[in-house]
Amino acid sequence: MFRIALDMMGGDLGVEATVSGLSLYRNTHDCSDVVFDLFGDKATLSKFVQKTNCEIHDTGTNVISATEKPAKAIKAGRGTSMFEAISWVAQGNADAVVSSGNTGAYMALSKMLIGTIDGIDRPAIVSIIPNIVNSTVMLDLGANTDCSPTKLLQFAIMGKAVSRVLQQIDNPRIGLLNIGTERTKGTDALEEAYELLANAQGLNFIGFVEGTDIAKGTADVIVTDGFTGNVSLKTMEGTIRYIAHTLKAGFSSSLMSKIGYLFCRSAIKTMKDAIDPRHHNGAPLVGLKKISIKSHGNSDAVGFANAISVVVKLAKSGFVSNIEKMISEIEKGNADENEDN
Amino acid sequence: MFRIALDMMGGDLGVEATVSGLSLYRNTHDCSDVVFDLFGDKATLSKFVQKTNCEIHDTGTNVISATEKPAKAIKAGRGTSMFEAISWVAQGNADAVVSSGNTGAYMALSKMLIGTIDGIDRPAIVSIIPNIVNSTVMLDLGANTDCSPTKLLQFAIMGKAVSRVLQQIDNPRIGLLNIGTERTKGTDALEEAYELLANAQGLNFIGFVEGTDIAKGTADVIVTDGFTGNVSLKTMEGTIRYIAHTLKAGFSSSLMSKIGYLFCRSAIKTMKDAIDPRHHNGAPLVGLKKISIKSHGNSDAVGFANAISVVVKLAKSGFVSNIEKMISEIEKGNADENEDN
Repeated sequence: MFRIALDMMGGDLGVEATVSGLSLYRNTHDCSDVVFDLFGDKATLSKFVQKTNCEIHDTGTNVISATEKPAKAIKAGRGTSMFEAISWVAQGNADAVVSSGNTGAYMALSKMLIGTIDGIDRPAIVSIIPNIVNSTVMLDLGANTDCSPTKLLQFAIMGKAVSRVLQQIDNPRIGLLNIGTERTKGTDALEEAYELLANAQGLNFIGFVEGTDIAKGTADVIVTDGFTGNVSLKTMEGTIRYIAHTLKAGFSSSLMSKIGYLFCRSAIKTMKDAIDPRHHNGAPLVGLKKISIKSHGNSDAVGFANAISVVVKLAKSGFVSNIEKMISEIEKGNADENEDN
Repeated sequence: MFRIALDMMGGDLGVEATVSGLSLYRNTHDCSDVVFDLFGDKATLSKFVQKTNCEIHDTGTNVISATEKPAKAIKAGRGTSMFEAISWVAQGNADAVVSSGNTGAYMALSKMLIGTIDGIDRPAIVSIIPNIVNSTVMLDLGANTDCSPTKLLQFAIMGKAVSRVLQQIDNPRIGLLNIGTERTKGTDALEEAYELLANAQGLNFIGFVEGTDIAKGTADVIVTDGFTGNVSLKTMEGTIRYIAHTLKAGFSSSLMSKIGYLFCRSAIKTMKDAIDPRHHNGAPLVGLKKISIKSHGNSDAVGFANAISVVVKLAKSGFVSNIEKMISEIEKGNADENEDN
């Protein structure tokens, strides 16, 4: 039996989105081996949630607001749905946790309550981004704004583990994001990180990649610092919205176009589905001793259901022990190499 | 009379693209007040280029290759089409220069031969990116990978000047790219840059903006360091290609869709034109004592013609003296303020 803790109160759309999302997930997936621990206002939740395989933990209407500083959330977060859901998992009562709440607070509380695994300084936020061939695992996407070469190496290892579970690629190609593919481009930190990744045991490092490579599918895993990753991901979101807007304007520009739209609705839908961020919702915070998934703040039912599917997949895969094993193997490999020298 | 120096040998598509691009520009614009100085192989150029308003400067087949290091270009570039075109402008024989050649070499040679204006340390690469409302002036896009707060302030000033000329906005809204809009987000350097921009005289600074804001049109000018800007711009390019690919796949998926495509071809074309990078080609290297425009390495005739239209517009606008004036005003304003304190 797997147990998943859900923060039912987090996110801009509140309990309506999480309740409908959970219901959508349960209607479309086999849930016979999963129990959900729901943290939130019992009065509301008990009205709408089916009782089977669900346990409600009453935290009333105590929530961490979207604008709360992480430091304040650490000090005064006890009793909120987010704090208690994470705490429940940290104490070993469940395997994984999901929240659509305040990212900074969620990150800080996950790190404090659950803790990072040996060899990892700080967790990274990972996203699975669709590309022309298949998908790209990209990290970090906002947790670490300033990244040392060692951290970038840790991201590469974590990215490999995520790729194995979510992309089913045994030995994923790992690229390091830069402003050119030549060895001489970029900052000193990237130059150093290049050396570290190229010499690490067990990593299929393919060198520097550029912004265009994310959508091209040049690499299965793309490693970058959280600042660049966050800007890049949000640029992508904005570009998608811009194109959708332009396309819509084009279709309503003439009667011919309007008729054409009726014929090719399914083609447009295929594209819209492929780029719909809700279908890619659920970003693992990787490097923690338990599984912690960040769902987008404005997730609706479809998005939240997708985040649940990601967390269940990771929980069933033995995700954390997988990463721990890989890190110790790489460290052992590097240690052996040092002995040889 | 305005004189524009063109490096006819630079770029992946060589002299064919530049010759056809120039010809396209001349056929679609009034060129009565412009003279073009063409640098390249006279034997080839004289065969294809109309003589009116054109002067060919023979540099034979000497070119700076795409992989040449900037340092080598500085040492051994003399005699190449790029070096001589820039040099011609630096010596005051023409008002502006355009090249599709090696970006690093072009940047280094422009800086060395032309020099930066007082108060600017290094030039920035600027691009005009289409957005939902109109367009965004974004800089830096690759010239400066590591940016101090002072440089970001200089970029803001240069961005304002570009916006005035190319967007016709008198007092453009200037945003600083970050991973969130809250004051507390981001790195220490960004925090410092925020202070500088907020306190600078004559800047309509609207605060931090995010990656999504580029396409949203929240700001007329978006300021960032060259590393983030380069990754963001290339992410955009990749996303556009990905969506075009998905859309094409959707349209060829069924007979209905294929028929639909025939009806809405013009709608698709509207979108394609709006996002076609060739229509936005011609990135000013701002902060130099003369106008220097970088055309994309793989520019075809359409792209090169667009770069020429940008350079002519800037030359006629008194672009450089405009920036010089704004910088001295801001410096004066800041100095007065310090006296008052």
